[in-house]
Amino acid sequence: MGYTLYGNWLSGPSYKAGLMLRLCGLDFAYRSIDLAKGMHKTPEYLKINRYGQVPALAHDGRIVVQSNTILDYVSEQAGRFRGRGEETWRAKEWLAWEADRLAPNVNRTRFFTRFAPTTDAAVQKYFRDAAELALKVLDGQLAGRQWLVGEAASIADIACYAPVAFAAEGNLELANHPNVKAWAERVAGLPGFAPPYELMPKADIG
Amino acid sequence: MGYTLYGNWLSGPSYKAGLMLRLCGLDFAYRSIDLAKGMHKTPEYLKINRYGQVPALAHDGRIVVQSNTILDYVSEQAGRFRGRGEETWRAKEWLAWEADRLAPNVNRTRFFTRFAPTTDAAVQKYFRDAAELALKVLDGQLAGRQWLVGEAASIADIACYAPVAFAAEGNLELANHPNVKAWAERVAGLPGFAPPYELMPKADIG
Repeated sequence: MGYTLYGNWLSGPSYKAGLMLRLCGLDFAYRSIDLAKGMHKTPEYLKINRYGQVPALAHDGRIVVQSNTILDYVSEQAGRFRGRGEETWRAKEWLAWEADRLAPNVNRTRFFTRFAPTTDAAVQKYFRDAAELALKVLDGQLAGRQWLVGEAASIADIACYAPVAFAAEGNLELANHPNVKAWAERVAGLPGFAPPYELMPKADIG
Repeated sequence: MGYTLYGNWLSGPSYKAGLMLRLCGLDFAYRSIDLAKGMHKTPEYLKINRYGQVPALAHDGRIVVQSNTILDYVSEQAGRFRGRGEETWRAKEWLAWEADRLAPNVNRTRFFTRFAPTTDAAVQKYFRDAAELALKVLDGQLAGRQWLVGEAASIADIACYAPVAFAAEGNLELANHPNVKAWAERVAGLPGFAPPYELMPKADIG
């Protein structure tokens, strides 16, 4: 009853789920969903993920979708990265903030820069400004702290790290956010860590 | 040890939290946070909500922020609207989808239309197109269903209802999404329901 991750090697949310599994020391089979070929919109995949998005995680006869829900699920299953007591609520708040302010703006800025440079300039600026603001907020929250919640790494850090890992592809400069840069290096030092293009397979495994 | 909601009567996420409390039959004290006066960025409020956003919920000596985290928390406390067994994961997936696809696009379309009509037209179109697409996805998922998860209303419905309640203010027409329209009427029929401007106080209460 192992884990099977459905994802795409270029997808930030897929990396988030893969990173969580690796940091928990959980092996997983992998199914590559080719977004360029529209594999995420096929009837077969829509049975796995009704939203037609990656990632999806199969485990123990169930399927969980949405990257932050996968983090919540795996942390509960593994009893890892959940914070202690009340800290679990703080971690969940960070997941919600990441989904609201960090991921959409950083991920879209990276997407436009790398894959859709002809997108309207005003739209690109809107998301870039919001991405810079989110990184600034994150930087402020990390002042004097090692981790976002309590005294240890949690799903809050793993969730927020995933978009940050792709920031450079959007020409978002972490040097402008030194607390984020130092924290990202701490995340990269966790046992089991690997950066996106090392961690994510390009083809099915297992 | 009652509930105290910090919110703003014009804020969709504040309404989401207030609606959850009302549908659970939970009375709450209310603190009005005047966004126009920047009250959400004051040192006093930042001690309540580190992100400087509304809503926040105080309960039993703790504070929970981020509207979907508040829904998760209240549903756990009250033992209501959580779905049965595995349905809880489905409901959490819907909260993540709402935060990713529905709320940001519908809420920003409403914001531009009502409060910031001079926003760049391409930016407005970007969010309006995404809002229409999200409503279409929601409509498709509601085909042949009464509720988003299982056979009863859950936090999935409450979360998704909140932006939908403000869609008309963004000139988003629910008549184009008949399953959404019928579902919204079912939500409006739940005991304790009230629409935004009836439910949300404009001044402190309690």
